[in-house]
Amino acid sequence: MDKSVLNALAAVRESSPAVHCITNSVAQNFTANVLLALGANPSMTHDADEVGEFVASADALLVNLGTLDPARRRSIDLAITSAENVGIPWVLDPVMIERSHRRAESAAQYLLRKPTVLRANGRETALMAGGSDMDALRRFAKEAGTVLAVTGPVDHVVSATQFADCSLGTPLMHQVTGFGCALSAVIAAFLAAEGDPEAATLAALHCVGEAGERAAVSAAGPASFAISFIDKLSRLGEETNV
Amino acid sequence: MDKSVLNALAAVRESSPAVHCITNSVAQNFTANVLLALGANPSMTHDADEVGEFVASADALLVNLGTLDPARRRSIDLAITSAENVGIPWVLDPVMIERSHRRAESAAQYLLRKPTVLRANGRETALMAGGSDMDALRRFAKEAGTVLAVTGPVDHVVSATQFADCSLGTPLMHQVTGFGCALSAVIAAFLAAEGDPEAATLAALHCVGEAGERAAVSAAGPASFAISFIDKLSRLGEETNV
Amino acid sequence: MDKSVLNALAAVRESSPAVHCITNSVAQNFTANVLLALGANPSMTHDADEVGEFVASADALLVNLGTLDPARRRSIDLAITSAENVGIPWVLDPVMIERSHRRAESAAQYLLRKPTVLRANGRETALMAGGSDMDALRRFAKEAGTVLAVTGPVDHVVSATQFADCSLGTPLMHQVTGFGCALSAVIAAFLAAEGDPEAATLAALHCVGEAGERAAVSAAGPASFAISFIDKLSRLGEETNV
Repeated sequence: MDKSVLNALAAVRESSPAVHCITNSVAQNFTANVLLALGANPSMTHDADEVGEFVASADALLVNLGTLDPARRRSIDLAITSAENVGIPWVLDPVMIERSHRRAESAAQYLLRKPTVLRANGRETALMAGGSDMDALRRFAKEAGTVLAVTGPVDHVVSATQFADCSLGTPLMHQVTGFGCALSAVIAAFLAAEGDPEAATLAALHCVGEAGERAAVSAAGPASFAISFIDKLSRLGEETNV
Repeated sequence: MDKSVLNALAAVRESSPAVHCITNSVAQNFTANVLLALGANPSMTHDADEVGEFVASADALLVNLGTLDPARRRSIDLAITSAENVGIPWVLDPVMIERSHRRAESAAQYLLRKPTVLRANGRETALMAGGSDMDALRRFAKEAGTVLAVTGPVDHVVSATQFADCSLGTPLMHQVTGFGCALSAVIAAFLAAEGDPEAATLAALHCVGEAGERAAVSAAGPASFAISFIDKLSRLGEETNV
Repeated sequence: MDKSVLNALAAVRESSPAVHCITNSVAQNFTANVLLALGANPSMTHDADEVGEFVASADALLVNLGTLDPARRRSIDLAITSAENVGIPWVLDPVMIERSHRRAESAAQYLLRKPTVLRANGRETALMAGGSDMDALRRFAKEAGTVLAVTGPVDHVVSATQFADCSLGTPLMHQVTGFGCALSAVIAAFLAAEGDPEAATLAALHCVGEAGERAAVSAAGPASFAISFIDKLSRLGEETNV
């Protein structure tokens, strides 16, 4: 792995950022275990009475729109406001917006709050950006004032001024529920430790992709892959940082 | 495995049916991973503002009564109506109705909406059918207008006109939380791909039983069994379909 | 393992206690699988319409304050009342109260209902007890009328009259989300099977610590550790009880 990626990973492990996740109920457990393996410190409440204080003592915020419901809607607004007040980065993950007009509208509204990073797959990004070619993505990133992390067989990081690719990974990632959701949480953790959003996002993609490739080598299927992915992530960088 | 089972499995893998699951919070993650391993495409929201549209673009619906709450009650009614409107099959899973009169009443009400399949263990079925002998089950299936999948050491598929057994499986299945819940989701996926409800249900039971038996061979306990089960399910049929 | 620990474990396996868990959405699945591996019978609803009846037919109750929300608040009050009415033991787990004043106040209120055991880490206990030295803990346990299980590198069981340590375990436990939450559920299961709260709590800590140490031997990281922990727990005592 690249030196800058290893440095960003080391910064995450050393600072152990508290990452508050408002995320869907399917992905909560896997996301928390991925963050712990990375050395980060996850929390997950989405109760309106608690979330502001949790976010105020966190180092980054994830807003994932899966299993969106009234409680999550209320807490997302409060959480973003709390994140703005304390000045921490946050990631928006507009899960499955192609399946619900209401959820797509919510995603558009949250985008106006200027997430540090928008992490989505190609279909979700195209729906939000109104197109999927590079010009459309760059224009969209500029207008939205966000860094795009468009994930797929090849991941793209696109901002108003920069562009980078990451082609690490394995098809097994798409057979594990909540894998993309966990990736968004990992990006949040890197944003907390590395000040440059493009560099942080790219480092997160590289670490997840690298751990994924290592896990895929001996996996007997998607479930043993997911277990091995967390194990590999927990030791990533050890061999070269020593 | 039987040729008809392999054909039904191949139909699931080829069509990759979207299975919308209203299910309990304990089983959501495992259920989603089981569906992905099968080649199906899970979604899980139970928000009243979203569920109708999710179900309208799905190929089958699961209604599982675990961790039933006001939000799930509202969304179940909307989801069944949406499933009726678009004409997709649905499975009712009356989890633990022996522990709550209110939940048992809900199960009885949902049964009036005529689920394609009712999947339950022997105790739950006996409570709903008012008996557990074959005559009682057949009469109940006929009156309810549903196919019964009564699971246990031997699984029974009972309808007004048909009866079949499946004796595949392993006791380890009962040591994994949400295993029966995931099985109900698998039945929903098979219903989407195979038009005959009795054949689809039997094929689902055979595939889950076969993957379970293969996983049990080398499992060191219930957790490694659950991991191996998903891995085996993801490759089921490969060896004979080639 | 100690004879008294093995006897308590055997009592859990023989009685298969029903343990009702009001717990956070992140830990539900892992907690249920840990209870099943132990031979206990988990249930998890936190709906106000159901929870009283579920608890009334259970043998022990867990009240875990993670992802606390209005539905959980309502059901916790009902569940404790139901537990008092039928005279079953219950465990309070005040997760992350240092991150929310509102949650800390709730923990203090629930403590007035006199949980059989309060299970918490050192930081959470110190916040509730107003100190962390042995005198403070003993005074706090006496005033609260509860047994304290303070977990960390060394676990302490403290009551008004007794004190004991358990130094089994592995740092990997802290890299698995919901591990402490599951431990609290295990304590609840032991309380159902073993009448003496201090002995039951100590036996639970020993069993979890022993299974953890055995699992750590061959774990490649935190995720394979969690899988192996459940496997080892499911077979704990076999070798010596035969």
